[in-house]
Amino acid sequence: MKALVYGGPGKMAVEDRPKPQIMEPGDAIVRITKTTICGTDLHILKGDLPTCAPGRILGHEGVGVVDAIGGNVTTFRPGDHVLISCISSCGKCYYCRRSMYSHCTTGGWILGNQIDGTQAEFVRIPYADTSLYPIVADADEEALVMLSDILPTGFECGVLNGKVAPGSSVAIVGSGPIGLAALLTAQFYSPAALIMIDLDDNRLEVAKKFGATATINSTDGKAAEKVMQMTDGRGVDTAIEAVGIPATFELCEALIAPGGTISNIGVHGTKVELHLERLWDRNITITTRLVDTASTPMLLEVVSAHRIDPKLLITHRFSFEHILEAYDTFGHAATTKALKVIIEA
Amino acid sequence: MKALVYGGPGKMAVEDRPKPQIMEPGDAIVRITKTTICGTDLHILKGDLPTCAPGRILGHEGVGVVDAIGGNVTTFRPGDHVLISCISSCGKCYYCRRSMYSHCTTGGWILGNQIDGTQAEFVRIPYADTSLYPIVADADEEALVMLSDILPTGFECGVLNGKVAPGSSVAIVGSGPIGLAALLTAQFYSPAALIMIDLDDNRLEVAKKFGATATINSTDGKAAEKVMQMTDGRGVDTAIEAVGIPATFELCEALIAPGGTISNIGVHGTKVELHLERLWDRNITITTRLVDTASTPMLLEVVSAHRIDPKLLITHRFSFEHILEAYDTFGHAATTKALKVIIEA
Amino acid sequence: MKALVYGGPGKMAVEDRPKPQIMEPGDAIVRITKTTICGTDLHILKGDLPTCAPGRILGHEGVGVVDAIGGNVTTFRPGDHVLISCISSCGKCYYCRRSMYSHCTTGGWILGNQIDGTQAEFVRIPYADTSLYPIVADADEEALVMLSDILPTGFECGVLNGKVAPGSSVAIVGSGPIGLAALLTAQFYSPAALIMIDLDDNRLEVAKKFGATATINSTDGKAAEKVMQMTDGRGVDTAIEAVGIPATFELCEALIAPGGTISNIGVHGTKVELHLERLWDRNITITTRLVDTASTPMLLEVVSAHRIDPKLLITHRFSFEHILEAYDTFGHAATTKALKVIIEA
Amino acid sequence: MKALVYGGPGKMAVEDRPKPQIMEPGDAIVRITKTTICGTDLHILKGDLPTCAPGRILGHEGVGVVDAIGGNVTTFRPGDHVLISCISSCGKCYYCRRSMYSHCTTGGWILGNQIDGTQAEFVRIPYADTSLYPIVADADEEALVMLSDILPTGFECGVLNGKVAPGSSVAIVGSGPIGLAALLTAQFYSPAALIMIDLDDNRLEVAKKFGATATINSTDGKAAEKVMQMTDGRGVDTAIEAVGIPATFELCEALIAPGGTISNIGVHGTKVELHLERLWDRNITITTRLVDTASTPMLLEVVSAHRIDPKLLITHRFSFEHILEAYDTFGHAATTKALKVIIEA
Repeated sequence: MKALVYGGPGKMAVEDRPKPQIMEPGDAIVRITKTTICGTDLHILKGDLPTCAPGRILGHEGVGVVDAIGGNVTTFRPGDHVLISCISSCGKCYYCRRSMYSHCTTGGWILGNQIDGTQAEFVRIPYADTSLYPIVADADEEALVMLSDILPTGFECGVLNGKVAPGSSVAIVGSGPIGLAALLTAQFYSPAALIMIDLDDNRLEVAKKFGATATINSTDGKAAEKVMQMTDGRGVDTAIEAVGIPATFELCEALIAPGGTISNIGVHGTKVELHLERLWDRNITITTRLVDTASTPMLLEVVSAHRIDPKLLITHRFSFEHILEAYDTFGHAATTKALKVIIEA
Repeated sequence: MKALVYGGPGKMAVEDRPKPQIMEPGDAIVRITKTTICGTDLHILKGDLPTCAPGRILGHEGVGVVDAIGGNVTTFRPGDHVLISCISSCGKCYYCRRSMYSHCTTGGWILGNQIDGTQAEFVRIPYADTSLYPIVADADEEALVMLSDILPTGFECGVLNGKVAPGSSVAIVGSGPIGLAALLTAQFYSPAALIMIDLDDNRLEVAKKFGATATINSTDGKAAEKVMQMTDGRGVDTAIEAVGIPATFELCEALIAPGGTISNIGVHGTKVELHLERLWDRNITITTRLVDTASTPMLLEVVSAHRIDPKLLITHRFSFEHILEAYDTFGHAATTKALKVIIEA
Repeated sequence: MKALVYGGPGKMAVEDRPKPQIMEPGDAIVRITKTTICGTDLHILKGDLPTCAPGRILGHEGVGVVDAIGGNVTTFRPGDHVLISCISSCGKCYYCRRSMYSHCTTGGWILGNQIDGTQAEFVRIPYADTSLYPIVADADEEALVMLSDILPTGFECGVLNGKVAPGSSVAIVGSGPIGLAALLTAQFYSPAALIMIDLDDNRLEVAKKFGATATINSTDGKAAEKVMQMTDGRGVDTAIEAVGIPATFELCEALIAPGGTISNIGVHGTKVELHLERLWDRNITITTRLVDTASTPMLLEVVSAHRIDPKLLITHRFSFEHILEAYDTFGHAATTKALKVIIEA
Repeated sequence: MKALVYGGPGKMAVEDRPKPQIMEPGDAIVRITKTTICGTDLHILKGDLPTCAPGRILGHEGVGVVDAIGGNVTTFRPGDHVLISCISSCGKCYYCRRSMYSHCTTGGWILGNQIDGTQAEFVRIPYADTSLYPIVADADEEALVMLSDILPTGFECGVLNGKVAPGSSVAIVGSGPIGLAALLTAQFYSPAALIMIDLDDNRLEVAKKFGATATINSTDGKAAEKVMQMTDGRGVDTAIEAVGIPATFELCEALIAPGGTISNIGVHGTKVELHLERLWDRNITITTRLVDTASTPMLLEVVSAHRIDPKLLITHRFSFEHILEAYDTFGHAATTKALKVIIEA
């Protein structure tokens, strides 16, 4: 089969690979119908993730059709349409029993990282019963690919941890795909203010279309000041960090209201400064999280009820044979204005 | 009346002052029967709190008897025995209506800071109806003085924010009075492990008597490592910071389990390093809080039911005329082994 | 001034009454600009509420302008535009400190019941600081009258107690004004299914316009069966009782899913049968509540952010001189199709 | 092997049965070292549970040693010491993924009910990875047998659902084994008042030893009145129903405080009267639950930390050959004063 294979820092290629086989009784083989590219895939290509060795098929998102199942799989049969979670969950370990699947002691985020991933014609999914989700045969596959990773990540790490609530005020720092996923899912809770902050006016325009009630271009260094003006000097109830660098995290510290919550989504490569000399008596909460995808069943319900349109995130579409072009487009988002790109089998 | 007056950095004296008068209809004048000294009083004496001007009567803890009330006070009458909260709460503002009395827009921690305090024969308490608590005439006053500040602080900022739960594991970094207050109140929730960490073996001995299930002297820099050994390599569910310096906060970052909570009690004078490069995907929560004393009614119930003995915290007793000696004893805790000192009218 | 006065069972009249005066320092006198009629007013007229004596001015909803304040009112000044809460809250008592204003020991629902109410030119509001809410001078008064009682009631008693959540399934039994208020505010949380149940097709048509995803006319006694069909045989996560009779409460018992919540809004005059022989092992929750109006600040934010349009509830408008006609219209809702009627000063 | 077999209403016998075999790859065979008898076993013997057919080996509690495992069991090996949960959980289904194991679509309470149980030398446990819990080889087996059912039932259905909290007031109606299990586990949360209500003075004496702060013999019909006197006329914050008949549930309705919670543990065979005409505006919560045993890992921690002594519940011990005598003793608790009886292999 065809697969997109990581070849070490800066290198990737479409290669011919043998079709994956059932290795454990809990495995399923899924034929991929739609997949996509994640910002984390770009991190791997830069060589930032030593857990991902050269030779690995990339990709941890996708929908498809079950091709084969191991002897212990009870929930799915060949022919079933499924959504693939980016997180593999054994369902038995200390963390899985606490719904913290991200920390599954033999799973977690391994797909397209420590085991071969979804940017291929077929993929082997371990713990299929607890890592795949049934979808209807005529589901909108493009919309559902957004539920493999980006929507649950924006929702769980940003919105749920950030305790977004009806009538509350929310600032999201970073209007890239993950910030926009937080923006979409924050609206599940009807906040009064949804302030989007970024350096790029184009992205802020997109944010307005996605439901932002205000936008701030933070190039002038006055974002915190402007947020204070918008919130009677109090700051926001929830600040969602959706970039992953010290400057944006520290901006969240500057614009949070007493009693508020900073929920971090960003993947950080370095430490940040936590200004406890200002914050120790401000009754604030800071959270971090790797997505558990525990909210996937709920998100499937919300999407099928049309309470949200995840396809808003999709800007480009490619056939699998043009996947390198898809990477190129996704990797140059500033010029291509790409958010999420769909790759079709 | 006699009062302990702050005279600027490094200076204090017992002075004769006029007895306070009702200034607002919500005020009460309380005759102090027992008071104590807080670590924050020592901070003021060092000149660390510019909000507290020379000439201020210190003290924000105490019990006493109502001497006079303003025209709008409905809950108390002269002669009533009362506990004084360190936090003044108007009961009406944005924050008070959210039970976040610490941020009361016209109150908060003002006693012995922005208005005259309790280390005197009488004190004026604004918003008496919502800042005093009724106690029975024959209450154990010494025990109840611990409910003005130290017990609610240890409980709300450390235990409640830290989500201490039955069967969970807790590490408390700092075995001074406030760490011990957290240790006492953590036991409301029956955690399985209560690990106390300090540099001082004497304080750790005290912690054992207060209910610590294990103690670690962190002088050798191996505290995090030892905690990992005690917790199957996972770390603790709750880490309570009860010191207020970068080293102890960063120790909490090192010993917290995935899914755990770091609850900060310490008063920090400088920023700390938050290692998001390690913590971004660990599903942790960090909280800060100035005590709201919203838990005071509950603490009164628990103490009157003898579920806890706050008097364990009291090591020394002085009459008011020896208050300077009390400060001396409290200020040299390393040698005097003082925890809380009672000052009696 | 003109006022609508209860004259005993079946009797009411517009009378001339003296303008109310400040009686306590916490009082405010409010000039009413808009008021409305509640189902509870009809109950009073039937003689169902012995707490309401003949001679009482009715009404517990309204917006207006502050005319005078007592010496202890600090939040409002004459000329301020305000929303009147149906619940008077002292802000000091055991229950008020727990945000359970409905059970305020000297307040609660007293307006238009134990003290004169809002269906008049002026009304005296006790505990003004904690029972009135500031609104802007050019606010949409009609929309805000819905926040005195009906919206917080539908929201707190039905939606909040019912734990409506994104993606969840909700059935509301009763499509009258209060059921529709629950339907509107349930959408704050983006449930996947909002099933409205009533005996009246017209009301169900209205429900569809308000956002119901399905409607069931329960005349044939098969409502529970139909709900089971719509929910894969599981039942709904939340069942909101918005009628107040045994049959509708027992219908909620029949259609609730394991793990679900029945939240009661209805005012019940008689006991109901609780089928514990079927429910004891179903992990369900049942809640009751008199509205606390603790959510009023949040609702004001949501309305001013246009996340909801409370004016959908308004079907008729009258000037105060036609208030008896307004009662007649509201009291014959089956024929007039009245939901809420606005009475303008 | 020897087994206690149900023979239809009123009949049981010790029989020779073939040793159970692995039937599914997730199964384990456990050699029983200690088991016990539950009140539910007596219900089965009366013929109350049609799900349990004659020929069934009874018993759903026990500890033992793994004898054999199926091909898909990864958590346990032969020779491992284990605690058996009364609830079998597949770990995959809709309810298991929500930690509501009691409603597992292919499990739940099936042991000693729909499949052969633990009152035998060996038992087959389906879904072993998610239905057994590892214990240390030298664990106190008698104490741990109490964690198969009675302690998690008292804790989850009574204490956790009842929101018992530090300083709160709790009444437990029924001082039998399950009421006492609630009493023991309620103390995890340090309530101020733990009032035990029963008709039997002997049982109330036992309750005092278990930590009740007050006891009421309700024979005179004045229990509610007495509770009101003990609680300043407010009633209790939590009322735990631990009997299962209308009179005791309705007593809970009579003594609950505004804002309080009635948590039902009792197995009810008939409907009860819910007095909504008194309770509709009292802000109360009522809960039901079949134990999920989701708290078992926590209870194991609490017991191993000696925060609780489950052996207090054990009054009698028998060898397996005397199991009929054990049933007799347990079945005549009024005269034998039996609480829990241990049956040893």
